[in-house]
Amino acid sequence: MIHYPVVNKNGDTIASAVTNLDIHDIARASRTFGIKKFYVVTPLKDQKVLVQKIISHWLTGMGAEYNPARRRALEIVQVEDSFEDVVEDIGLREGVKPKAVVTCAKKKEQSLGYDSFKELIQDGNPYILNFGTGWGLDKSFLDNADYILDPITGYTDYNHLSVRSAVSIILDRLLGK
Amino acid sequence: MIHYPVVNKNGDTIASAVTNLDIHDIARASRTFGIKKFYVVTPLKDQKVLVQKIISHWLTGMGAEYNPARRRALEIVQVEDSFEDVVEDIGLREGVKPKAVVTCAKKKEQSLGYDSFKELIQDGNPYILNFGTGWGLDKSFLDNADYILDPITGYTDYNHLSVRSAVSIILDRLLGK
Repeated sequence: MIHYPVVNKNGDTIASAVTNLDIHDIARASRTFGIKKFYVVTPLKDQKVLVQKIISHWLTGMGAEYNPARRRALEIVQVEDSFEDVVEDIGLREGVKPKAVVTCAKKKEQSLGYDSFKELIQDGNPYILNFGTGWGLDKSFLDNADYILDPITGYTDYNHLSVRSAVSIILDRLLGK
Repeated sequence: MIHYPVVNKNGDTIASAVTNLDIHDIARASRTFGIKKFYVVTPLKDQKVLVQKIISHWLTGMGAEYNPARRRALEIVQVEDSFEDVVEDIGLREGVKPKAVVTCAKKKEQSLGYDSFKELIQDGNPYILNFGTGWGLDKSFLDNADYILDPITGYTDYNHLSVRSAVSIILDRLLGK
């Protein structure tokens, strides 16, 4: 979950604020669908402190006893300064450089369908699914990705899903039973 | 989205509190996948006032100008006192009594797969997808439903999705492109 570099409503590149429910919802969906790590990327010190505080509450604080299932989800959350730090961390864990995958609400020429990508990831290599907060990932980030996935749509002209919904649906399409 | 009758952590039947992000996320997902109405069911007066306040902000208040896409999503939200009131409202709109569909995190004997249910709803009749907040729908509510859908799972033993994630995934499975 990328909080920098993302764009705001006017298209300016910004660092967005962390949303508490993003962390919970996406950690739970990641656990459900067997994702190894859920990285929360933000360069802002106060935001990193906030995420650590949320995680600690559920791992070792009052929350751990109150809701053990939530603890299991938040165990896989890790805060990093930048996308590059995520790549490095995965490289160290897996011994292979991960591929970067992005999604975009607008259909791109080179974008990949879910069935094709589902087949591709059977190769056992590490992949990072990147999701932008705010009004979406910065153009430079999109341009540097290895793969772009098709937008999630229904049979309407409306495509403004929350990032929580988009992540959940994409994990289900790729890793659902 | 049912806030009564649902159960709490101890299994007691309660009326749960409305969560602001549930309304936004589920309205956006409903719009994306072509759902006609998103009913927020709560018998609590202060909670109904809260939901109306959220909707008004985005339909006619500051939010309407700031984010017209959000307005289009929240236009389909309607607050009702009870499930019976939802049934009545749909009956009046559609001229046919709707069928009640529920989901449950635990697999039930008579539960239906998504492909079967996707086929079934092509009949053009109205269906209500009911989602419980808190720790889920009350047993009496589950027992009275016309259909139970399979739980959403991955290839793990963890099945604690947020209601926002579950709704998004189910709408995509039934109505995604």
